[in-house]
Amino acid sequence: MTAFVLAGAQYAPRIGEVAANIDLSEHWIREAAAAGARLVVLPEAASAGYVFDDRAEAERYAEPFPGGSVHRAWSALAAELGLWIVGGVTERAGERLYNSAVLVGPHGHAGTYRKAHLWNDEQRIYDRQDDGLPVFSTPLGEIAVGICYDAWFPETFRSAALAGADLLALPANWVPVPGQPDTVPVMADMLCMTGAHSNQMYVAGISRTGTERGQEFIGRSLIAGPEGWPLAGPAGPVADELLLAEVDLIGSRPARHHNPFNQPLADRRTDLYRSGPLARP
Amino acid sequence: MTAFVLAGAQYAPRIGEVAANIDLSEHWIREAAAAGARLVVLPEAASAGYVFDDRAEAERYAEPFPGGSVHRAWSALAAELGLWIVGGVTERAGERLYNSAVLVGPHGHAGTYRKAHLWNDEQRIYDRQDDGLPVFSTPLGEIAVGICYDAWFPETFRSAALAGADLLALPANWVPVPGQPDTVPVMADMLCMTGAHSNQMYVAGISRTGTERGQEFIGRSLIAGPEGWPLAGPAGPVADELLLAEVDLIGSRPARHHNPFNQPLADRRTDLYRSGPLARP
Repeated sequence: MTAFVLAGAQYAPRIGEVAANIDLSEHWIREAAAAGARLVVLPEAASAGYVFDDRAEAERYAEPFPGGSVHRAWSALAAELGLWIVGGVTERAGERLYNSAVLVGPHGHAGTYRKAHLWNDEQRIYDRQDDGLPVFSTPLGEIAVGICYDAWFPETFRSAALAGADLLALPANWVPVPGQPDTVPVMADMLCMTGAHSNQMYVAGISRTGTERGQEFIGRSLIAGPEGWPLAGPAGPVADELLLAEVDLIGSRPARHHNPFNQPLADRRTDLYRSGPLARP
Repeated sequence: MTAFVLAGAQYAPRIGEVAANIDLSEHWIREAAAAGARLVVLPEAASAGYVFDDRAEAERYAEPFPGGSVHRAWSALAAELGLWIVGGVTERAGERLYNSAVLVGPHGHAGTYRKAHLWNDEQRIYDRQDDGLPVFSTPLGEIAVGICYDAWFPETFRSAALAGADLLALPANWVPVPGQPDTVPVMADMLCMTGAHSNQMYVAGISRTGTERGQEFIGRSLIAGPEGWPLAGPAGPVADELLLAEVDLIGSRPARHHNPFNQPLADRRTDLYRSGPLARP
């Protein structure tokens, strides 16, 4: 049996309070384990919060990973509870500073993804990564990781799927998008649903609640199945919430890879696509 | 003033009835003109219907374009009414047969797009095109054309935007997608909304109604603005409907190209993306 429970914890990390944030994450990781989860996805920037004034402030709370208090806490929890964790961290790597998400398993640190698409003020706080878009092999399946604004780029989902990812785990700090009407789901959720559908892949977009230094976050976490439809969520915009979905990353491969209705990976026309520089009239 | 009214006509062409379909299209084109439209988008396969038994049957109703009765009718209407038409046709080009959409303006035939991603049985009916994904320059703006299943491929939207398209006009014959829940918009509409948002481009996905040889179509036509939100529609699933939206393809360029909230074209990380063959675990 390869099916398991995937959890997403939507809550509000606190800026600059690393020890308190470790406690908060422990609460949600234990809740997920109690619900039977074998993988739990936490929000972006779960170690130290998000709305830093500048790079110097972010550096104060950044930790190496592996190494540092967050690594120790999550590794111990993953080992004790026998589960996997994907969560956002403010990462120091020598002189460099990244908005990262890490994968930790029962045997410790299993992978790090550094945000490829830096949004807005992030460009003056974090370094730009040149590491690529990794996919991590685990006993649960092939797991790609993205962070928040990465979902605005369909290439994030496509690159993951082309490398064999069964799931894109996407810690996020989604913010209100201008003009959002009540009549359709929030854009972040639609990006996760279409990204899942067009890539026949699970997507877990796990966001945060609350307001930090005037920046509102919108919650709305979502676990989408490989046909794009919600398996859990969208969560509400305000309340903390644990999302739970039974998924089968490995067992679903035959059905996903031979979907008679559509084959948006196999039917690509890579001979026709443009991907280079932008032409503007 | 570069703003104008964009129309989309959602209705039900009839299989094999080319003359009747020309009359039907004329009705909707005149309705659009009466509402002040300068561009009207018709469904996919508007000349001869969609659910052909085989290639031989499709060939019976295919016409060259330019040349043929549909070309004559749409050119005459565009000239008389001073507008532009994008509509789906079954195209014969020598020995070849295409599921195409044409652009016709006041001075006649202005461009042809042949469906790049053939869906399901289309692969045994139509030829595969090697022409690429064109963008046509018009006085209204730069217009790319896609057809139905093309929207399942984010590369369709991206390729259009990278070539400078202001609008993707997408005639469609959308069918029910398995598992569609009532709680979220139909997948086709979400693909149009996210495609518009992630490419800061207008998208007009104009579908059809009715049932043809047992194949149900779902309507749900939509005109999305460059932030992804619906400007007109989604239309209902059953009724014929004329969608109307005021758009400004050219005048909106400065705001679209310098959106302070997100820059999903400029912020791409083309150094990191995968686009080649598919790896599967």
